[in-house]
Amino acid sequence: MASYQLCVAPPEALLKPLSIPNRLLLGPGPSNLAPRVQAAGGLQMIGHMHKETFQVMDEIKKGIQYVFQTRNPLTLAISGSGHCALEVALFNLLEPGDSFLVGANGEWGRRAAEIGERIGAHVHAMIKEPGSYYTLQEVEEGLAQHKPVLLFLTQGESSTGVLQPLDGYGELCHRYQCLLLVDAVASLGGVPIFMDHQGIDALYSGSQKVLNGPPGTSLLSFSDRAKHKVYSRKTKPFSFLMDITLLANLWGCDDKPRMYHHTTPIIGLFTLRESLALISEQGLESSWRQHREAMEHLHSRLQGLGLQLFVRDPASRLPTVTTVAVPAGYNWRDIVDYVMDSFSIEISGGLGPSLGKVLRIGLMGCNASRENVDRLAQALKEALQRCPRHRL
Amino acid sequence: MASYQLCVAPPEALLKPLSIPNRLLLGPGPSNLAPRVQAAGGLQMIGHMHKETFQVMDEIKKGIQYVFQTRNPLTLAISGSGHCALEVALFNLLEPGDSFLVGANGEWGRRAAEIGERIGAHVHAMIKEPGSYYTLQEVEEGLAQHKPVLLFLTQGESSTGVLQPLDGYGELCHRYQCLLLVDAVASLGGVPIFMDHQGIDALYSGSQKVLNGPPGTSLLSFSDRAKHKVYSRKTKPFSFLMDITLLANLWGCDDKPRMYHHTTPIIGLFTLRESLALISEQGLESSWRQHREAMEHLHSRLQGLGLQLFVRDPASRLPTVTTVAVPAGYNWRDIVDYVMDSFSIEISGGLGPSLGKVLRIGLMGCNASRENVDRLAQALKEALQRCPRHRL
Ligand SMILES: Cc1ncc(COP(=O)(O)O)c(C=O)c1O
Ligand SMILES: Cc1ncc(COP(=O)(O)O)c(C=O)c1O
Repeated sequence: MASYQLCVAPPEALLKPLSIPNRLLLGPGPSNLAPRVQAAGGLQMIGHMHKETFQVMDEIKKGIQYVFQTRNPLTLAISGSGHCALEVALFNLLEPGDSFLVGANGEWGRRAAEIGERIGAHVHAMIKEPGSYYTLQEVEEGLAQHKPVLLFLTQGESSTGVLQPLDGYGELCHRYQCLLLVDAVASLGGVPIFMDHQGIDALYSGSQKVLNGPPGTSLLSFSDRAKHKVYSRKTKPFSFLMDITLLANLWGCDDKPRMYHHTTPIIGLFTLRESLALISEQGLESSWRQHREAMEHLHSRLQGLGLQLFVRDPASRLPTVTTVAVPAGYNWRDIVDYVMDSFSIEISGGLGPSLGKVLRIGLMGCNASRENVDRLAQALKEALQRCPRHRL
Repeated sequence: MASYQLCVAPPEALLKPLSIPNRLLLGPGPSNLAPRVQAAGGLQMIGHMHKETFQVMDEIKKGIQYVFQTRNPLTLAISGSGHCALEVALFNLLEPGDSFLVGANGEWGRRAAEIGERIGAHVHAMIKEPGSYYTLQEVEEGLAQHKPVLLFLTQGESSTGVLQPLDGYGELCHRYQCLLLVDAVASLGGVPIFMDHQGIDALYSGSQKVLNGPPGTSLLSFSDRAKHKVYSRKTKPFSFLMDITLLANLWGCDDKPRMYHHTTPIIGLFTLRESLALISEQGLESSWRQHREAMEHLHSRLQGLGLQLFVRDPASRLPTVTTVAVPAGYNWRDIVDYVMDSFSIEISGGLGPSLGKVLRIGLMGCNASRENVDRLAQALKEALQRCPRHRL
């Protein structure tokens, strides 16, 4: 039957059992799974085109409309992490040669700019130092100068800990015939967002942050304006997998019968459904409050330890991800390692423009509690005592 | 704190518990989860950059090398389903203007051709009627005429039930300076494949077929030839998420420290690891035998019911997915629905070129057993008695 002899043996490492430690995940994501979400991860498979799966997909759509506060029909989950939702947005909303304005005050804008360049857009990055956000005036200058078809902003800039305000930005963009795309991966559920009221044209978020789900799915919605741009493209998007017109059909967002496009991550849809059910039960306002309270408690405990917040302006601190200036004399990595090795708690260092400058602490979804803050504060206290401190 | 009032209420449908039925999945995929894989789906989260996750990734790489029978260092799992692996292959192996030869004897070649066109390759589809495969001579004619840089073939053409032979095709391609890309999504583990011996330059497969895992990850490996083509590209691939040089780094396939690229589907990595562990324990030869025996039993039971196999040539019948000609006078959908509604067994109709012509029966991984074949034969027998039969 076989034409050759086997030349690669079964790997020994796979003959040992899989063992995963318990960790408290207080980095910028993923966060721990909520118990109900974790249970859904252990469900059995059904087909991606079964009616029960379509029902789960419909429930997910409704759940996304709720957490995004939108009535957009073109609302769906993406079979991939936050980056996949970003690429779906850019691949569909930009055509080669389009002018694309990017708020690049941290890692996520950098990445949006890089993707824009790969697909042949004219990218105009508004570079700003990490720790700051974009004012309406700065955005207006960019719009007037570059006449973009699309502006990218990050609501929760998790590499720097900055919260970008969003009131008025959509309206401003529309005055300049520009669409507004917002990354809410690290902020959704932790701070208010109102897609429709705020005139956001494309909004995406992830499953593995405040929603306490496994990574592998993300949330995306397009306004009618964005949809119009997509459906009047002159070129097809480069990706078949990310073509929003095909995904819209699969998700029942058009009036044609659903057709097989790709196999959706069925178990990931179950877990996402449970994540959205949990936040629907809790209510958005209660979730926002929980995150604000956990943040306030964290800030006061950090101050008690003599630590300094990286973001100066209290109003622009992101509740879900707090950035702490690396304390003078310490190596950030020693602190991160100490907390992990001695307490099984994850916090993380900086990313991209904030690398080496900050420690990042995430309090997301069910992880955003006083108790977790107190556990972490205890761990940090010990880390500051035990980690080597270099003379300044 | 919030600038607007909530305008979208929590959806009622999400306030009800999630309930998923038990099904025997004997369609062309996904198949049922193996119990050990299902259990891994219920594990708790750890970080995507934790050392335990890297270890799981290393074990997955070794497992893929085993099931692919390859020593390629550039071997990794993709954070997406089979289509995602296909796009990663095409986005990286083709540049705009490249000549791309496609075996289009079913749905998967059509899709490869469509993606090739989207990214600006010159696509030459060798159209063949469904139910047939490509001979070495046909491929050689295509290579000589179109001088492609890449040839796409599907080993297990699950839309038609055809098994494409692979001995000699790699060597032939290389004589024409062409790389060979093979889709083994529906065949891996069910029939022999020898990536290195057969000179396959890029090979991918899925997690939700013979591997009995949830959809959402896929397997991919590049030969040194393919790698050379990628690393000497003149243009960057359109996708950042699918850029194999960045994925190679994340998967420890280069000699640089691993850097965050995107958040991998961590729980999906756990389940994939367990899938690969199971097939490593069983051994490939035993798995191939199991699928051949299950297929033979299925064919004899189908013949006993007076049903006809769609693929004429017995040697080119795919063991994992059997296509049955829709019996005269019946509507395929009635049969599929009857088996589902009365027995909770999934089989499926045709896809693309085989739509309306066939029923498709999948026997994959732990589903490939005599017992399941007997359950299905019983269900089909009843379906043939009960479903309406139109006069001919
Ligand atoms: C604000 C923000 N945007 C985008 C991403 C990227 O998402 P992913 O890693 O899920 O692809 C992240 C992930 O940390 C994020 O925090
Ligand atoms: C042979 C073959 N190739 C590719 C695919 C596509 O894979 P997915 O649906 O996981 O994207 C399938 C799925 O059924 C398949 O059978």
